[in-house]
Amino acid sequence: MIRVGTGFDTHAYDAASPLRLAGLDWPGEPGLSGHSDGDAVCHAVVDALLSAAGLGDIGGLVGVDEPETEGAASTGFVRLALQRLAAEGWRPVNVSVQIVGNRPKFAPRRAEAQAVMTDLVGAPVSLAATTTDGLGFTGRGEGVAVIANALIERD
Amino acid sequence: MIRVGTGFDTHAYDAASPLRLAGLDWPGEPGLSGHSDGDAVCHAVVDALLSAAGLGDIGGLVGVDEPETEGAASTGFVRLALQRLAAEGWRPVNVSVQIVGNRPKFAPRRAEAQAVMTDLVGAPVSLAATTTDGLGFTGRGEGVAVIANALIERD
Amino acid sequence: MIRVGTGFDTHAYDAASPLRLAGLDWPGEPGLSGHSDGDAVCHAVVDALLSAAGLGDIGGLVGVDEPETEGAASTGFVRLALQRLAAEGWRPVNVSVQIVGNRPKFAPRRAEAQAVMTDLVGAPVSLAATTTDGLGFTGRGEGVAVIANALIERD
Repeated sequence: MIRVGTGFDTHAYDAASPLRLAGLDWPGEPGLSGHSDGDAVCHAVVDALLSAAGLGDIGGLVGVDEPETEGAASTGFVRLALQRLAAEGWRPVNVSVQIVGNRPKFAPRRAEAQAVMTDLVGAPVSLAATTTDGLGFTGRGEGVAVIANALIERD
Repeated sequence: MIRVGTGFDTHAYDAASPLRLAGLDWPGEPGLSGHSDGDAVCHAVVDALLSAAGLGDIGGLVGVDEPETEGAASTGFVRLALQRLAAEGWRPVNVSVQIVGNRPKFAPRRAEAQAVMTDLVGAPVSLAATTTDGLGFTGRGEGVAVIANALIERD
Repeated sequence: MIRVGTGFDTHAYDAASPLRLAGLDWPGEPGLSGHSDGDAVCHAVVDALLSAAGLGDIGGLVGVDEPETEGAASTGFVRLALQRLAAEGWRPVNVSVQIVGNRPKFAPRRAEAQAVMTDLVGAPVSLAATTTDGLGFTGRGEGVAVIANALIERD
Protein backbone atom coordinates (compact mmCIF):
# COMPACT_ATOMS: atom_id res chain seq x y z
CA MET A 1 0.00 0.00 0.00
CA ILE A 2 1.67 3.15 -1.28
CA ARG A 3 0.69 6.82 -1.40
CA VAL A 4 2.07 10.08 -2.71
CA GLY A 5 2.01 13.48 -0.99
CA THR A 6 3.00 16.97 -1.98
CA GLY A 7 3.98 19.93 0.18
CA PHE A 8 4.81 23.54 -0.63
CA ASP A 9 6.15 26.30 1.57
CA THR A 10 7.38 29.85 1.11
CA HIS A 11 9.16 32.20 3.49
CA ALA A 12 10.37 35.74 2.96
CA TYR A 13 13.97 36.54 3.82
CA ASP A 14 14.50 38.21 7.16
CA ALA A 15 18.07 39.49 7.29
CA ALA A 16 17.79 39.96 11.05
CA SER A 17 17.35 36.21 11.64
CA PRO A 18 19.91 33.43 11.37
CA LEU A 19 19.21 31.05 8.49
CA ARG A 20 18.04 27.52 9.21
CA LEU A 21 17.37 25.47 6.09
CA ALA A 22 17.22 21.73 5.52
CA GLY A 23 18.16 21.13 9.13
CA LEU A 24 21.41 23.10 8.85
CA ASP A 25 22.64 26.43 10.21
CA TRP A 26 23.93 28.77 7.50
CA PRO A 27 26.11 31.39 9.25
CA GLY A 28 26.33 34.72 7.39
CA GLU A 29 23.28 34.02 5.23
CA PRO A 30 20.03 36.03 5.51
CA GLY A 31 17.46 34.07 7.49
CA LEU A 32 13.84 33.28 6.74
CA SER A 33 10.90 34.85 8.54
CA GLY A 34 8.58 32.66 10.53
CA HIS A 35 7.25 31.99 13.99
CA SER A 36 9.48 28.91 14.27
CA ASP A 37 13.03 28.83 12.85
CA GLY A 38 11.58 29.34 9.34
CA ASP A 39 13.09 26.16 7.89
CA ALA A 40 10.94 25.96 4.75
CA VAL A 41 12.48 22.63 3.71
CA CYS A 42 11.35 20.95 6.92
CA HIS A 43 7.90 22.57 6.61
CA ALA A 44 7.39 21.34 3.04
CA VAL A 45 8.58 17.85 4.02
CA VAL A 46 6.13 17.78 6.94
CA ASP A 47 3.26 18.80 4.65
CA ALA A 48 4.21 16.21 2.01
CA LEU A 49 4.36 13.41 4.58
CA LEU A 50 1.12 14.37 6.34
CA SER A 51 -0.71 14.87 3.04
CA ALA A 52 0.37 11.46 1.74
CA ALA A 53 -1.04 9.84 4.87
CA GLY A 54 -4.19 11.97 4.94
CA LEU A 55 -3.23 13.37 8.33
CA GLY A 56 -3.74 17.08 7.73
CA ASP A 57 -1.02 19.69 7.54
CA ILE A 58 1.61 21.42 9.65
CA GLY A 59 -0.93 23.94 10.95
CA GLY A 60 -2.87 21.13 12.58
CA LEU A 61 0.27 19.38 13.84
CA VAL A 62 1.86 22.17 15.83
CA GLY A 63 0.59 25.42 17.27
CA VAL A 64 2.21 27.59 14.63
CA ASP A 65 1.43 30.80 16.49
CA GLU A 66 1.87 29.55 20.04
CA PRO A 67 4.61 30.53 22.50
CA GLU A 68 6.09 27.01 22.72
CA THR A 69 6.90 26.92 19.00
CA GLU A 70 8.44 30.42 18.84
CA GLY A 71 11.86 29.95 17.33
CA ALA A 72 11.43 26.18 17.53
CA ALA A 73 13.66 23.89 15.46
CA SER A 74 11.52 22.66 12.58
CA THR A 75 13.37 19.35 12.58
CA GLY A 76 11.20 18.61 15.63
CA PHE A 77 8.10 19.10 13.46
CA VAL A 78 9.42 16.46 11.05
CA ARG A 79 9.91 14.02 13.94
CA LEU A 80 6.39 14.74 15.17
CA ALA A 81 4.91 14.17 11.71
CA LEU A 82 6.76 10.85 11.44
CA GLN A 83 5.31 9.78 14.80
CA ARG A 84 1.81 10.52 13.52
CA LEU A 85 2.49 8.47 10.40
CA ALA A 86 4.00 5.60 12.40
CA ALA A 87 0.94 5.54 14.65
CA GLU A 88 -1.09 4.72 11.53
CA GLY A 89 1.45 2.20 10.26
CA TRP A 90 2.97 4.45 7.55
CA ARG A 91 6.68 4.50 6.72
CA PRO A 92 8.35 7.03 4.39
CA VAL A 93 9.75 5.46 1.19
CA ASN A 94 11.54 8.56 -0.05
CA VAL A 95 11.20 12.34 -0.19
CA SER A 96 12.27 14.58 -3.07
CA VAL A 97 12.74 18.29 -2.40
CA GLN A 98 13.28 21.20 -4.78
CA ILE A 99 14.40 24.50 -3.25
CA VAL A 100 13.70 27.58 -5.40
CA GLY A 101 15.61 30.76 -4.62
CA ASN A 102 18.80 32.75 -5.00
CA ARG A 103 20.21 32.18 -1.53
CA PRO A 104 21.84 30.29 0.03
CA LYS A 105 24.13 28.76 -2.58
CA PHE A 106 23.07 25.20 -1.92
CA ALA A 107 25.41 22.97 -3.97
CA PRO A 108 28.44 23.21 -1.65
CA ARG A 109 26.43 21.84 1.29
CA ARG A 110 23.96 19.64 -0.55
CA ALA A 111 25.54 16.34 0.50
CA GLU A 112 25.67 17.48 4.12
CA ALA A 113 22.04 18.62 4.09
CA GLN A 114 20.88 15.41 2.43
CA ALA A 115 22.64 13.33 5.08
CA VAL A 116 20.98 15.31 7.89
CA MET A 117 17.51 15.14 6.32
CA THR A 118 17.86 11.45 5.39
CA ASP A 119 18.87 10.63 8.95
CA LEU A 120 15.96 12.69 10.26
CA VAL A 121 13.33 11.10 8.00
CA GLY A 122 14.76 7.57 8.14
CA ALA A 123 14.44 7.19 4.37
CA PRO A 124 16.24 8.76 1.38
CA VAL A 125 15.72 12.53 1.09
CA SER A 126 16.95 14.17 -2.12
CA LEU A 127 17.58 17.90 -2.12
CA ALA A 128 18.13 20.11 -5.15
CA ALA A 129 18.14 23.86 -5.57
CA THR A 130 17.42 26.08 -8.53
CA THR A 131 16.90 29.76 -9.27
CA THR A 132 14.18 31.33 -11.41
CA ASP A 133 16.44 33.19 -13.82
CA GLY A 134 15.73 36.52 -12.13
CA LEU A 135 11.94 36.12 -12.46
CA GLY A 136 9.24 36.46 -9.82
CA PHE A 137 9.68 36.91 -6.08
CA THR A 138 12.34 34.23 -5.85
CA GLY A 139 14.22 35.83 -8.75
CA ARG A 140 14.07 39.23 -7.06
CA GLY A 141 15.56 37.71 -3.93
CA GLU A 142 12.50 38.31 -1.76
CA GLY A 143 12.18 34.77 -0.46
CA VAL A 144 12.49 31.03 -0.91
CA ALA A 145 9.91 28.51 -2.13
CA VAL A 146 10.17 24.77 -1.51
CA ILE A 147 8.33 21.92 -3.23
CA ALA A 148 8.46 18.48 -1.59
CA ASN A 149 7.07 15.17 -2.80
CA ALA A 150 6.89 12.14 -0.54
CA LEU A 151 6.15 8.49 -1.14
CA ILE A 152 5.00 6.47 1.88
CA GLU A 153 3.95 2.86 2.39
CA ARG A 154 2.35 0.50 4.87
CA ASP A 155 1.63 -3.23 4.95
CA MET B 1 1.16 -1.11 -12.38
CA ILE B 2 1.38 2.34 -10.83
CA ARG B 3 1.90 5.84 -12.18
CA VAL B 4 2.28 9.38 -10.88
CA GLY B 5 0.75 12.55 -12.30
CA THR B 6 1.03 16.22 -11.51
CA GLY B 7 -1.39 19.06 -12.19
CA PHE B 8 -1.18 22.80 -11.64
CA ASP B 9 -3.83 25.48 -12.00
CA THR B 10 -4.12 29.17 -11.28
CA HIS B 11 -7.11 31.49 -11.28
CA ALA B 12 -7.34 35.19 -10.55
CA TYR B 13 -9.91 36.35 -8.00
CA ASP B 14 -13.11 37.74 -9.43
CA ALA B 15 -15.04 39.42 -6.64
CA ALA B 16 -18.18 39.50 -8.80
CA SER B 17 -18.37 35.67 -8.87
CA PRO B 18 -19.34 33.27 -6.11
CA LEU B 19 -16.43 31.11 -4.92
CA ARG B 20 -16.41 27.40 -5.73
CA LEU B 21 -13.31 25.63 -4.45
CA ALA B 22 -12.66 21.97 -3.72
CA GLY B 23 -16.24 21.14 -4.59
CA LEU B 24 -17.68 23.51 -1.97
CA ASP B 25 -19.53 26.81 -2.11
CA TRP B 26 -17.88 29.55 -0.04
CA PRO B 27 -20.54 32.25 0.56
CA GLY B 28 -19.12 35.73 1.14
CA GLU B 29 -15.71 34.88 -0.31
CA PRO B 30 -14.39 36.42 -3.56
CA GLY B 31 -14.77 33.97 -6.43
CA LEU B 32 -12.30 32.81 -9.04
CA SER B 33 -12.42 33.82 -12.67
CA GLY B 34 -12.93 31.19 -15.32
CA HIS B 35 -15.26 30.03 -18.03
CA SER B 36 -16.55 27.24 -15.76
CA ASP B 37 -17.09 27.73 -12.02
CA GLY B 38 -13.34 28.38 -11.63
CA ASP B 39 -12.74 25.57 -9.12
CA ALA B 40 -8.96 25.43 -9.41
CA VAL B 41 -8.74 22.43 -7.05
CA CYS B 42 -10.93 20.31 -9.33
CA HIS B 43 -8.99 21.51 -12.38
CA ALA B 44 -5.60 20.59 -10.89
CA VAL B 45 -6.96 17.20 -9.79
CA VAL B 46 -8.28 16.54 -13.32
CA ASP B 47 -4.90 17.40 -14.81
CA ALA B 48 -3.01 15.23 -12.30
CA LEU B 49 -5.26 12.22 -12.99
CA LEU B 50 -5.19 12.61 -16.78
CA SER B 51 -1.44 13.18 -16.82
CA ALA B 52 -0.77 10.08 -14.73
CA ALA B 53 -2.73 8.00 -17.22
CA GLY B 54 -1.27 9.70 -20.30
CA LEU B 55 -4.72 10.87 -21.33
CA GLY B 56 -4.01 14.52 -22.06
CA ASP B 57 -5.27 17.45 -20.04
CA ILE B 58 -8.45 19.30 -19.09
CA GLY B 59 -8.36 21.35 -22.30
CA GLY B 60 -8.74 18.17 -24.33
CA LEU B 61 -11.35 16.72 -21.98
CA VAL B 62 -13.94 19.47 -22.01
CA GLY B 63 -14.62 22.40 -24.29
CA VAL B 64 -13.18 24.99 -21.95
CA ASP B 65 -14.48 27.89 -24.03
CA GLU B 66 -17.74 26.37 -25.21
CA PRO B 67 -21.26 27.43 -24.21
CA GLU B 68 -22.11 24.14 -22.51
CA THR B 69 -19.28 24.49 -19.98
CA GLU B 70 -20.00 28.15 -19.13
CA GLY B 71 -20.41 28.26 -15.38
CA ALA B 72 -20.28 24.46 -15.25
CA ALA B 73 -19.55 22.68 -11.98
CA SER B 74 -15.96 21.47 -12.21
CA THR B 75 -16.82 18.43 -10.11
CA GLY B 76 -18.35 17.14 -13.34
CA PHE B 77 -14.95 17.44 -15.03
CA VAL B 78 -13.44 15.24 -12.30
CA ARG B 79 -16.15 12.61 -12.91
CA LEU B 80 -15.49 12.76 -16.64
CA ALA B 81 -11.72 12.35 -16.12
CA LEU B 82 -12.34 9.33 -13.89
CA GLN B 83 -14.51 7.77 -16.60
CA ARG B 84 -11.67 8.19 -19.09
CA LEU B 85 -9.26 6.55 -16.66
CA ALA B 86 -11.67 3.72 -15.90
CA ALA B 87 -12.10 3.06 -19.63
CA GLU B 88 -8.36 2.31 -19.69
CA GLY B 89 -8.48 0.25 -16.50
CA TRP B 90 -6.94 2.93 -14.24
CA ARG B 91 -8.07 3.53 -10.64
CA PRO B 92 -6.93 6.45 -8.47
CA VAL B 93 -4.83 5.40 -5.46
CA ASN B 94 -4.71 8.81 -3.79
CA VAL B 95 -4.50 12.50 -4.62
CA SER B 96 -2.59 15.12 -2.65
CA VAL B 97 -3.48 18.78 -3.16
CA GLN B 98 -1.76 21.95 -1.99
CA ILE B 99 -3.72 25.19 -2.29
CA VAL B 100 -1.59 28.36 -2.31
CA GLY B 101 -3.28 31.67 -1.57
CA ASN B 102 -4.59 34.07 1.05
CA ARG B 103 -8.29 33.32 0.66
CA PRO B 104 -10.42 31.52 1.57
CA LYS B 105 -9.26 30.57 5.05
CA PHE B 106 -9.23 26.86 4.40
CA ALA B 107 -8.57 25.15 7.74
CA PRO B 108 -12.10 25.54 9.18
CA ARG B 109 -13.60 23.64 6.24
CA ARG B 110 -10.73 21.33 5.35
CA ALA B 111 -12.34 18.17 6.71
CA GLU B 112 -15.58 18.95 4.88
CA ALA B 113 -13.76 19.65 1.59
CA GLN B 114 -11.67 16.48 1.93
CA ALA B 115 -14.80 14.40 2.46
CA VAL B 116 -16.45 15.86 -0.64
CA MET B 117 -13.36 15.42 -2.83
CA THR B 118 -12.64 11.92 -1.49
CA ASP B 119 -16.20 10.88 -2.23
CA LEU B 120 -15.94 12.42 -5.70
CA VAL B 121 -12.63 10.74 -6.59
CA GLY B 122 -13.39 7.44 -4.89
CA ALA B 123 -9.94 7.39 -3.26
CA PRO B 124 -8.30 9.44 -0.51
CA VAL B 125 -7.87 13.12 -1.40
CA SER B 126 -5.74 15.21 0.97
CA LEU B 127 -6.14 18.98 0.91
CA ALA B 128 -3.83 21.52 2.52
CA ALA B 129 -3.56 25.27 2.16
CA THR B 130 -0.69 27.65 2.65
CA THR B 131 0.13 31.28 1.99
CA THR B 132 3.29 32.70 0.46
CA ASP B 133 4.21 35.05 3.27
CA GLY B 134 3.02 38.11 1.31
CA LEU B 135 5.20 37.27 -1.71
CA GLY B 136 4.26 37.01 -5.37
CA PHE B 137 0.79 37.14 -6.90
CA THR B 138 -0.67 34.80 -4.30
CA GLY B 139 0.85 36.90 -1.50
CA ARG B 140 -0.60 40.08 -3.00
CA GLY B 141 -4.01 38.45 -3.01
CA GLU B 142 -4.38 38.44 -6.80
CA GLY B 143 -5.26 34.79 -7.17
CA VAL B 144 -4.93 31.19 -6.10
CA ALA B 145 -2.53 28.49 -7.32
CA VAL B 146 -3.11 24.78 -6.81
CA ILE B 147 -0.65 21.89 -7.10
CA ALA B 148 -2.05 18.35 -7.25
CA ASN B 149 -0.24 15.03 -7.34
CA ALA B 150 -2.05 11.80 -8.11
CA LEU B 151 -1.08 8.17 -7.88
CA ILE B 152 -3.08 5.73 -10.02
CA GLU B 153 -2.91 1.98 -10.60
CA ARG B 154 -4.21 -0.79 -12.80
CA ASP B 155 -3.83 -4.56 -12.87
CA MET C 1 11.36 -0.83 -5.18
CA ILE C 2 9.83 2.42 -6.28
CA ARG C 3 10.66 6.10 -5.72
CA VAL C 4 9.27 9.52 -6.59
CA GLY C 5 11.19 12.59 -7.70
CA THR C 6 10.30 16.18 -8.42
CA GLY C 7 12.02 18.73 -10.62
CA PHE C 8 11.36 22.40 -11.29
CA ASP C 9 12.92 24.75 -13.81
CA THR C 10 12.35 28.30 -14.99
CA HIS C 11 13.80 30.21 -17.93
CA ALA C 12 13.18 33.75 -19.07
CA TYR C 13 12.23 34.32 -22.68
CA ASP C 14 15.03 35.46 -24.95
CA ALA C 15 13.52 36.60 -28.24
CA ALA C 16 16.96 36.49 -29.89
CA SER C 17 17.22 32.70 -29.41
CA PRO C 18 15.36 29.93 -31.22
CA LEU C 19 12.94 28.05 -28.97
CA ARG C 20 13.71 24.48 -27.95
CA LEU C 21 11.10 22.97 -25.65
CA ALA C 22 10.22 19.36 -24.88
CA GLY C 23 12.78 18.19 -27.41
CA LEU C 24 11.18 20.10 -30.28
CA ASP C 25 12.14 23.14 -32.33
CA TRP C 26 9.46 25.85 -32.37
CA PRO C 27 10.19 28.12 -35.35
CA GLY C 28 8.92 31.67 -34.97
CA GLU C 29 8.49 31.42 -31.18
CA PRO C 30 10.60 33.41 -28.73
CA GLY C 31 13.32 31.22 -27.27
CA LEU C 32 14.40 30.64 -23.68
CA SER C 33 17.58 31.98 -22.17
CA GLY C 34 20.18 29.56 -20.92
CA HIS C 35 23.73 28.40 -21.38
CA SER C 36 22.47 25.27 -23.16
CA ASP C 37 19.49 25.32 -25.53
CA GLY C 38 17.28 26.40 -22.60
CA ASP C 39 14.87 23.45 -22.89
CA ALA C 40 13.22 23.80 -19.47
CA VAL C 41 11.14 20.65 -19.96
CA CYS C 42 14.26 18.50 -20.39
CA HIS C 43 15.91 20.23 -17.42
CA ALA C 44 12.96 19.59 -15.11
CA VAL C 45 12.76 15.97 -16.27
CA VAL C 46 16.48 15.49 -15.57
CA ASP C 47 16.08 16.92 -12.07
CA ALA C 48 13.02 14.76 -11.35
CA LEU C 49 14.80 11.58 -12.46
CA LEU C 50 18.04 12.34 -10.61
CA SER C 51 16.19 13.39 -7.47
CA ALA C 52 14.10 10.20 -7.43
CA ALA C 53 17.29 8.14 -7.57
CA GLY C 54 19.20 10.29 -5.08
CA LEU C 55 21.80 11.13 -7.72
CA GLY C 56 21.98 14.89 -7.34
CA ASP C 57 20.78 17.44 -9.86
CA ILE C 58 21.50 18.77 -13.33
CA GLY C 59 24.19 21.11 -12.00
CA GLY C 60 26.21 18.12 -10.84
CA LEU C 61 25.51 16.13 -14.02
CA VAL C 62 26.76 18.54 -16.65
CA GLY C 63 29.02 21.55 -16.58
CA VAL C 64 26.22 24.08 -16.87
CA ASP C 65 28.61 26.97 -17.43
CA GLU C 66 31.28 25.17 -19.42
CA PRO C 67 32.16 25.68 -23.10
CA GLU C 68 31.18 22.14 -24.13
CA THR C 69 27.57 22.61 -23.02
CA GLU C 70 27.10 26.06 -24.60
CA GLY C 71 24.04 25.76 -26.82
CA ALA C 72 23.97 22.00 -26.18
CA ALA C 73 20.79 20.02 -26.86
CA SER C 74 19.22 19.31 -23.48
CA THR C 75 17.92 15.99 -24.76
CA GLY C 76 21.51 14.83 -24.29
CA PHE C 77 21.26 15.73 -20.59
CA VAL C 78 18.21 13.47 -20.30
CA ARG C 79 20.13 10.59 -21.90
CA LEU C 80 23.04 11.19 -19.53
CA ALA C 81 20.73 11.19 -16.50
CA LEU C 82 19.16 7.93 -17.64
CA GLN C 83 22.64 6.39 -17.93
CA ARG C 84 23.36 7.40 -14.35
CA LEU C 85 20.10 5.85 -13.21
CA ALA C 86 20.71 2.67 -15.21
CA ALA C 87 24.16 2.33 -13.65
CA GLU C 88 22.38 2.05 -10.29
CA GLY C 89 19.71 -0.29 -11.63
CA TRP C 90 16.92 2.31 -11.84
CA ARG C 91 14.36 2.41 -14.67
CA PRO C 92 11.84 5.23 -15.20
CA VAL C 93 8.19 4.15 -14.70
CA ASN C 94 6.63 7.37 -15.96
CA VAL C 95 7.16 11.12 -15.95
CA SER C 96 4.43 13.76 -15.69
CA VAL C 97 5.25 17.31 -16.77
CA GLN C 98 3.30 20.54 -16.37
CA ILE C 99 4.46 23.55 -18.41
CA VAL C 100 3.34 26.93 -17.07
CA GLY C 101 3.46 29.92 -19.42
CA ASN C 102 1.78 31.87 -22.21
CA ARG C 103 4.00 30.72 -25.07
CA PRO C 104 4.29 28.58 -27.05
CA LYS C 105 0.70 27.42 -27.60
CA PHE C 106 1.36 23.83 -26.66
CA ALA C 107 -1.83 21.90 -27.47
CA PRO C 108 -1.33 21.71 -31.27
CA ARG C 109 2.02 19.93 -30.82
CA ARG C 110 1.41 18.09 -27.56
CA ALA C 111 1.10 14.64 -29.11
CA GLU C 112 4.29 15.18 -31.10
CA ALA C 113 6.22 16.41 -28.06
CA GLN C 114 4.96 13.52 -25.93
CA ALA C 115 6.11 11.02 -28.55
CA VAL C 116 9.59 12.56 -28.67
CA MET C 117 9.95 12.72 -24.88
CA THR C 118 8.51 9.22 -24.36
CA ASP C 119 10.96 7.82 -26.90
CA LEU C 120 13.79 9.73 -25.21
CA VAL C 121 12.95 8.57 -21.68
CA GLY C 122 11.94 5.04 -22.64
CA ALA C 123 8.81 5.26 -20.48
CA PRO C 124 5.55 7.23 -20.74
CA VAL C 125 6.04 11.00 -20.50
CA SER C 126 2.87 13.11 -20.16
CA LEU C 127 3.03 16.78 -21.07
CA ALA C 128 0.43 19.41 -20.28
CA ALA C 129 0.52 23.18 -20.46
CA THR C 130 -1.38 25.85 -18.61
CA THR C 131 -1.31 29.61 -18.16
CA THR C 132 -1.58 31.57 -14.92
CA ASP C 133 -4.55 33.73 -15.88
CA GLY C 134 -2.32 36.78 -16.41
CA LEU C 135 -0.77 36.51 -12.93
CA GLY C 136 2.87 36.48 -11.90
CA PHE C 137 5.92 36.34 -14.16
CA THR C 138 4.45 33.59 -16.31
CA GLY C 139 1.22 35.57 -16.71
CA ARG C 140 3.18 38.69 -17.71
CA GLY C 141 4.92 36.66 -20.39
CA GLU C 142 8.39 36.98 -18.86
CA GLY C 143 9.23 33.29 -18.87
CA VAL C 144 8.23 29.68 -18.55
CA ALA C 145 8.15 27.43 -15.47
CA VAL C 146 8.08 23.65 -15.63
CA ILE C 147 7.18 21.13 -12.92
CA ALA C 148 8.09 17.47 -13.49
CA ASN C 149 7.34 14.43 -11.38
CA ALA C 150 8.97 11.08 -12.03
CA LEU C 151 8.37 7.60 -10.73
CA ILE C 152 11.28 5.15 -11.02
CA GLU C 153 11.79 1.52 -10.01
CA ARG C 154 14.42 -1.15 -9.61
CA ASP C 155 14.36 -4.81 -8.65
